[in-house]
Order: sequence, then C-alpha cells, then structure tokens
Amino acid sequence: MGNKDNNCVFCSLDGREIIAQNHLAIAFYDLYPVNQGHTLIVPRRHVEQLFEATFEELDAINRLVFEVKELLEDKYTPDGYNVGVNVGRAAGQTIFHLHIHVIPRYKGDVEDPRGGIRKLKKSLVPYKKEGKGS
Amino acid sequence: MGNKDNNCVFCSLDGREIIAQNHLAIAFYDLYPVNQGHTLIVPRRHVEQLFEATFEELDAINRLVFEVKELLEDKYTPDGYNVGVNVGRAAGQTIFHLHIHVIPRYKGDVEDPRGGIRKLKKSLVPYKKEGKGS
Repeated sequence: MGNKDNNCVFCSLDGREIIAQNHLAIAFYDLYPVNQGHTLIVPRRHVEQLFEATFEELDAINRLVFEVKELLEDKYTPDGYNVGVNVGRAAGQTIFHLHIHVIPRYKGDVEDPRGGIRKLKKSLVPYKKEGKGS
Repeated sequence: MGNKDNNCVFCSLDGREIIAQNHLAIAFYDLYPVNQGHTLIVPRRHVEQLFEATFEELDAINRLVFEVKELLEDKYTPDGYNVGVNVGRAAGQTIFHLHIHVIPRYKGDVEDPRGGIRKLKKSLVPYKKEGKGS
C-alpha cells in the first residue's frame, strides 16, 4: 500500500489480532481497553491525524465501524458505544497515526453516563437539567 | 427533506445559527459547550443514532467536520480537536437524533490531556507509561 512509517506501531501491527479489514482500513483491539471490546480502526496509509485522511479512507473507516459493531454485539452485547478520535496532542492524541476509538459501553459502567464524550473535560457551560439538551 | 420528528430539537433547530450545511447534514454550535467553538453536526433526516445513518449521510457529515474545522481554525485557532459520538443511553446519549461532537481543544484546558476521549470513564487497563501507546 506504500506510505508506511517504519517507526509507527500502527503501520506494522506486529503480533496484533486483526478483527476486521477492508481495502483502506484495519480494525484491532486496543491494548489499554477502557472497556471490554475497545477497538481501534486505522487507515492502512500512514496519516498523522484525521484531517490528513481522504474522504474515501473515512468512508472505509465508517464501514469498518459498522462491521466492528456487529462483531462486538455478538461477542460482548454492550448497551451502547462511544466512537471518536483525538486530533493533536492538546486533544490527547499520543500515537500519530490516525485511529478511531470504538468503545463499547455497559449499563452501570459509570455512575451517571449522561454526556458521554463531553466528559473528557469540565464543560464551560454546565450540562443541562434533566430532559433538556445540547 | 421528509423524515422529520416534530418533537425533536435537532429536526427544527429553532432559532439556532447554522454555521455550515450540505445536502444531507447541518452544523451548529452546542448550547452547552465543553470548550469555545463546540459544534454539533447532524443529518437532516431524523435518525436516532449512528448505526441508523447511511454511509452517504456519514460522508456528508465527514465533509462538514472538515469544513467546520476550517471555520473554527479561523475563529478560535484551537490546538486540537476531539470528534466523536455517543450511541445509546449507556454511552451518554441524551438527544435521540444522531449528532457528532466537534470539540476544539486548547493547550492547558486540562492538566493532562493524554488519552482524550478515553477519559469518559476509568480504563479497565491503566493507560500506558510515557511513550508507549494504544
């Protein structure tokens, strides 16, 4: 496929079990799972972050997100998912090969799940009373 | 466009400033911003969650994510972004019309940004020593 970086752990994927793949993207389990079934999806091509990917690569990634969701349903029957990506060091990115997190969620895995990915930092504006939203 | 839900706040968007749009998706500011410039992108069609969207809708949403990023660069010059979605109540979803969060990040907005969206809950496996990853 070209465009590999020899120093990149997501270019080689040495010893990792690949759980799904297509012509442009690959899915495998995260080594530091937030929850059981936590999966990462990366483009085959080495691009540092989201905004360097092509829309064709992002489409291939989306299709894997859907495929991975079916696999996870069968294996872990989670109650929900967070799907997302960190872009840049200030956003928490630590490996500079674009990777999308698919994090299965289970009822009771946090005390109050409301807000989901909002919880990565304290909100500027406190998040809503019951029943109102976004 | 059809497929509206009269009770859905993201179907009407009453009084909201639309910052970008295309044939299948619309972008506007979150009313409870986690950070300045926090934007939501929704499909025009009322679908409850990610896995009910078509790949065409997700492509339209991705294109808006890129467009919104350019707008936010000009207006707020953030240092990074988290882009993600909550699927289901257990994952923190509270409004049941699919919406993708685009959250600009600024250096110093949290003490230790590493992990980003991982921080929505405590990890099963503690997240790595400096320099290793995912």
